[in-house]
Amino acid sequence: MILTDSLLDFFLETRQHTENICEPLEIEDYVVQPIADVSPPKWHLGHSTWFFEEFILKPHAQGYTIFDTDFSFVFNSYYETVGKRVVRADRGNLSRPSVEKVYAYRDHVTQAIKNFFTENQDQKVNDLLEIGIHHEKQHQELLLTDIKYILGNNPLLPKYSEGFEEHSIERHEMDWISVDEGIYDIGHNADSFCYDNELGRHKVYLHSYKIANKLVTNSEYIAFIDAGGYKKFDLWHAEGWDWVNANNISAPLYWHDVEGTWQHYTLNGLQKIDGDAPVTHLSYYEAFAFAQWKGCRLPTEFEWEAAQECFPWGKRWEWTESAYLPYPGYQKADGALGEYNGKFMVNQKVLRGGSVATPKKHTRSTYRNFFQTGLRWQFTGLRLAK
Amino acid sequence: MILTDSLLDFFLETRQHTENICEPLEIEDYVVQPIADVSPPKWHLGHSTWFFEEFILKPHAQGYTIFDTDFSFVFNSYYETVGKRVVRADRGNLSRPSVEKVYAYRDHVTQAIKNFFTENQDQKVNDLLEIGIHHEKQHQELLLTDIKYILGNNPLLPKYSEGFEEHSIERHEMDWISVDEGIYDIGHNADSFCYDNELGRHKVYLHSYKIANKLVTNSEYIAFIDAGGYKKFDLWHAEGWDWVNANNISAPLYWHDVEGTWQHYTLNGLQKIDGDAPVTHLSYYEAFAFAQWKGCRLPTEFEWEAAQECFPWGKRWEWTESAYLPYPGYQKADGALGEYNGKFMVNQKVLRGGSVATPKKHTRSTYRNFFQTGLRWQFTGLRLAK
Amino acid sequence: MILTDSLLDFFLETRQHTENICEPLEIEDYVVQPIADVSPPKWHLGHSTWFFEEFILKPHAQGYTIFDTDFSFVFNSYYETVGKRVVRADRGNLSRPSVEKVYAYRDHVTQAIKNFFTENQDQKVNDLLEIGIHHEKQHQELLLTDIKYILGNNPLLPKYSEGFEEHSIERHEMDWISVDEGIYDIGHNADSFCYDNELGRHKVYLHSYKIANKLVTNSEYIAFIDAGGYKKFDLWHAEGWDWVNANNISAPLYWHDVEGTWQHYTLNGLQKIDGDAPVTHLSYYEAFAFAQWKGCRLPTEFEWEAAQECFPWGKRWEWTESAYLPYPGYQKADGALGEYNGKFMVNQKVLRGGSVATPKKHTRSTYRNFFQTGLRWQFTGLRLAK
Amino acid sequence: MILTDSLLDFFLETRQHTENICEPLEIEDYVVQPIADVSPPKWHLGHSTWFFEEFILKPHAQGYTIFDTDFSFVFNSYYETVGKRVVRADRGNLSRPSVEKVYAYRDHVTQAIKNFFTENQDQKVNDLLEIGIHHEKQHQELLLTDIKYILGNNPLLPKYSEGFEEHSIERHEMDWISVDEGIYDIGHNADSFCYDNELGRHKVYLHSYKIANKLVTNSEYIAFIDAGGYKKFDLWHAEGWDWVNANNISAPLYWHDVEGTWQHYTLNGLQKIDGDAPVTHLSYYEAFAFAQWKGCRLPTEFEWEAAQECFPWGKRWEWTESAYLPYPGYQKADGALGEYNGKFMVNQKVLRGGSVATPKKHTRSTYRNFFQTGLRWQFTGLRLAK
Repeated sequence: MILTDSLLDFFLETRQHTENICEPLEIEDYVVQPIADVSPPKWHLGHSTWFFEEFILKPHAQGYTIFDTDFSFVFNSYYETVGKRVVRADRGNLSRPSVEKVYAYRDHVTQAIKNFFTENQDQKVNDLLEIGIHHEKQHQELLLTDIKYILGNNPLLPKYSEGFEEHSIERHEMDWISVDEGIYDIGHNADSFCYDNELGRHKVYLHSYKIANKLVTNSEYIAFIDAGGYKKFDLWHAEGWDWVNANNISAPLYWHDVEGTWQHYTLNGLQKIDGDAPVTHLSYYEAFAFAQWKGCRLPTEFEWEAAQECFPWGKRWEWTESAYLPYPGYQKADGALGEYNGKFMVNQKVLRGGSVATPKKHTRSTYRNFFQTGLRWQFTGLRLAK
Repeated sequence: MILTDSLLDFFLETRQHTENICEPLEIEDYVVQPIADVSPPKWHLGHSTWFFEEFILKPHAQGYTIFDTDFSFVFNSYYETVGKRVVRADRGNLSRPSVEKVYAYRDHVTQAIKNFFTENQDQKVNDLLEIGIHHEKQHQELLLTDIKYILGNNPLLPKYSEGFEEHSIERHEMDWISVDEGIYDIGHNADSFCYDNELGRHKVYLHSYKIANKLVTNSEYIAFIDAGGYKKFDLWHAEGWDWVNANNISAPLYWHDVEGTWQHYTLNGLQKIDGDAPVTHLSYYEAFAFAQWKGCRLPTEFEWEAAQECFPWGKRWEWTESAYLPYPGYQKADGALGEYNGKFMVNQKVLRGGSVATPKKHTRSTYRNFFQTGLRWQFTGLRLAK
Repeated sequence: MILTDSLLDFFLETRQHTENICEPLEIEDYVVQPIADVSPPKWHLGHSTWFFEEFILKPHAQGYTIFDTDFSFVFNSYYETVGKRVVRADRGNLSRPSVEKVYAYRDHVTQAIKNFFTENQDQKVNDLLEIGIHHEKQHQELLLTDIKYILGNNPLLPKYSEGFEEHSIERHEMDWISVDEGIYDIGHNADSFCYDNELGRHKVYLHSYKIANKLVTNSEYIAFIDAGGYKKFDLWHAEGWDWVNANNISAPLYWHDVEGTWQHYTLNGLQKIDGDAPVTHLSYYEAFAFAQWKGCRLPTEFEWEAAQECFPWGKRWEWTESAYLPYPGYQKADGALGEYNGKFMVNQKVLRGGSVATPKKHTRSTYRNFFQTGLRWQFTGLRLAK
Repeated sequence: MILTDSLLDFFLETRQHTENICEPLEIEDYVVQPIADVSPPKWHLGHSTWFFEEFILKPHAQGYTIFDTDFSFVFNSYYETVGKRVVRADRGNLSRPSVEKVYAYRDHVTQAIKNFFTENQDQKVNDLLEIGIHHEKQHQELLLTDIKYILGNNPLLPKYSEGFEEHSIERHEMDWISVDEGIYDIGHNADSFCYDNELGRHKVYLHSYKIANKLVTNSEYIAFIDAGGYKKFDLWHAEGWDWVNANNISAPLYWHDVEGTWQHYTLNGLQKIDGDAPVTHLSYYEAFAFAQWKGCRLPTEFEWEAAQECFPWGKRWEWTESAYLPYPGYQKADGALGEYNGKFMVNQKVLRGGSVATPKKHTRSTYRNFFQTGLRWQFTGLRLAK
């Protein structure tokens, strides 16, 4: 349990950080949605604000003045409980509300939360604030990856900033960590904040395995490309092979073959690829095919969690072989918040770790991220197991 | 032939008018593309500028400094001759170049044209300038209709302005104008500016016909709706009937049934429908079905042109029964300008007249506008014949 | 007006001929529908029979016993008046009714018509019989072209027959026929049978033109291919260019590049292409592009009709530049038969002439065939004009 | 290990049984493919034959005469190793080879296998024969379900037979079986035939759970429908909810609301639904939503396997909550047979049990069937857990 004071600070810091992320943008960058998975930055700003208004201010803050009644329609994401939403693929068609108005909305809600929590002593509402903060942190990560997509798919390839470090090199030697067969405890023990999908802590039997102490690097991945990895159907799932061919995939997202040399778009603009940096922007299909080619496999999320203290992690979300499924005894939250996690537990894969885009204090060893198998715009990578 | 001085004035007026149209916009409104047929206003600003740079300044103005070499890629529309273009449906994904930069591009080119034509005496280049001006005027009309679509499909239904008069009432009595059988001369005689598709003047044999002196009004169209016009397959082309059902069409574009009363979005916001104003935002399929229901038909473009002196026109583009085809002896222009008209002469219908969005001096009695049969975002209407 | 006796003979001959066309088929060939435009032969057999049952026997033949009440649902094509139809693209999913049952249906209806017309003296019902016969003749042509598509898209490329002559050579010298400017009478004068779309005879003013006395041949078309015709965007309509690229078109339908030599699938199996035979299985887009490449154009349907006595025709349906539109004073027939022609008069092109698949007595100089611009499975060809 | 003699008998019985399944069909029924997932019966007959020819006769039987060299192209399903295949969705467009020829192909291969195995003593080839037999048995099940789909989607709703018993009633009382927490052994121990995906036997830790001794019945499912189950988004996965709405799902496949009473198409024709029979033809999405509505869940495949001795099973394939993933140490077979299972291990769910369509000796307690989450044409059902 966090005391209200420090929670409020946490809230204000988080709100500020979201706006800091957007600081380098032109107004035009806030508006577009080049693919359905990428939301306009303006929408992230509004939606993370709407969450506080909808779940805290409207039901709990007596006398709160709603900023604009249309916004519950415009900024809902997928909470069917709350009312008809703007269909996701249409977000990029909305020029209004303007960016200026969205910032005014943010200020209005931030101030109202501040006023309300100065006096609030109700733990249940504190818990809602905490989940709202973590929700906004999730959107901070999406903001960065969506901005990267928006700029990285513009033919002018504009830079986002000069100083964003996407690719810290993994300098340590590759080695295999051996883990013994046995029963392991998996999941969060809930002393501190976590999402419902990390609960409850339970036992899993693992057979002995080895897991790499290091992420797969760009130079290893280039070797896979050079060996014809994208042309060998037997390395791929049937569905992955269809994906490769339907989309003409021949390299990770953002890679450009510039006169025979691989370059890639980064938040700092187009750059040479550093062979020692961990490869990123892979789909699950590619991660799987690479592992097959190496005669290895991806770890399960349980293997990852059981071994994670023995290796550094946090720069790439790591694809696992595990499907995103409920843990034993999983209970979804009541009401609209119950839509947060459970309803996505089908046909997605678990990713473990965190990424360069993950805000501080936002990931942990039991955190379960999840995406569909063909998505690549997150800072995804892989670690081998066998 | 227009003298250079007055042509330059015409150019500068036209450039200014384009920017006046955009004056009420927020920056965000310049960026989005809700459907493939609607282009972002930013794109219209850039493309009409690119036309002058590409066809006049680059080939003819010695010493001209290209504003940005990437722009010929970004702002080409469909001129295959000039190089690879941004695929039309992707225009709305481009946040850059920024609106500010596009205005700087406009200023750069406007100034360069001004400098160049102060000294130019070449009639051929004057002709290019004239076509560039008319090209920009065409985009002025599209700008307005695209802005209407962008704002009119936003759930907030923002106004564009307070003073735009979309719906001047047709107060005169409906009557039939009779035209005798015989040979009529059709097409432009080319003393003044016209497009290649209006040439050459030629003879057409018309059988005797009657044509209405008045456009069909909203109240007549409401009677069609009330009589179940959208549910009677025998009024429609097979293709039109499929279009109605696939798109769940039950009224003109922008019409809203607000608690049992028809309202429509206009550039001045949501308004009650005036029964005496001419109906607009119809597809060809709807115009045809309405005419069938009245026991009449649409005029051909030749019937329209032969009779046009006898009735007022210019507030609505009028769908005709004529397919958009070349006139006898049609010759398309050389080079990229030859792509202007000829390559669209299949599976489109001719519209005659002009609309409230048509800029001054831009239409004439021989002007041939053309659109695909399912499109409705122009200020289209209809006039009956029999 | 045809007397009942000879009309009945005409009917019986026509019914027999349909079945003769199907004689070489395996039962399996009757069932499939590889693309939406191609119907299963079984369906043609049933539908042409349904027409007589629905429009003659049910309303006029007292005491007629309906063969199977489900068949009006299964074998309706597009007559919305008559009730809900099987969606066209689903025809190939219907294994029942069996071929045997469909032939029993044919016999039942043929016999009932025979009995009924032995005594019928009503001219109006005679007219219905005549239109039913011509309807079945239209389906005879479609049967052949649909069978060709079914077999020609099977990887085994089975033959339909040994003796079907698709490609009679045009041995005469190519020459231009000159036609004078003036008023010409166009359309059918209705002494004998014709469709409603050929009426009424009317005047058209034609400017002077030249039209080829010969169809374009395979060797001329190969020259177009060899000159890069499929890669030169400026020869094509914008829509045609999209069609070429979306479908990877590089030759007429059924052409195969067999080790550097063009061969084509014919009803007699895969054969070498004869350079002197008229090219066939072209879309309108291809016919137009070829004409552009030759510096010529396609004739209008009026130019074709005015000149047709001066050249041989009838082996290829010839694409014209004319859109399929109603003639002046066009009146569609009452009731369901009114759906025969009028509702297709949008976004299609007129073809004139006839083809090797056209049954005897089925085409004439005023006959207006029509197809959408991208279709190629008919025996289509072209004749140049200028 | 099975001795060659009894294996050959097993082979001959299996071949005969396939043909018995097809005995009630009309030739036309062998040809069609109403949806991509359903293959034409003709194709199953050919493909199961091709398997023996390709993997046994061609590589091992000296002097074997290939029946038709084109057939390896026509009857391959998805074995990329073996060559270019007919795209799956095109199978229903192939009228040739004829049914008669496919039966001749079957006879040719059956006889050749018989001759070859009369003398063969090689265990490795015996193993291939065994896998080929099991492969054909899998296709026997698909044959029945595909035939059901072909006939059940025909508007005439023809019967397949009079005597096929789809719906044996579960008469025993519903009760919960309790299973203790602990380590369980899962997977096949490989003394007898199994597929590679059932190997190797391994330990799984299960927390205590309860599993129903009985399948969910039609009357329970009707209660779910009546309670608005298809209209309550909170019972569904997000993806399931989209599936319901995109496909307008409101009941299991083959159910018809006939004047207010539920009937369903069965292999014996349209019949009243028996409330006591186990519900079938559900997607995973529906099974999950039903379980949610009951306050329960689906068992995992491990829970199912650990408890299966305590309840009757085998009439319905039972959806589990488990994703289809490799067991620890999973090794796919070498060569083309390695494509049998492993490449489908993504985005599918495991089903356990067997169905009324499963041939004798074909399922077992470790058998892992798998389908995509939206498929319903198998005899799928569900069992609750909590």
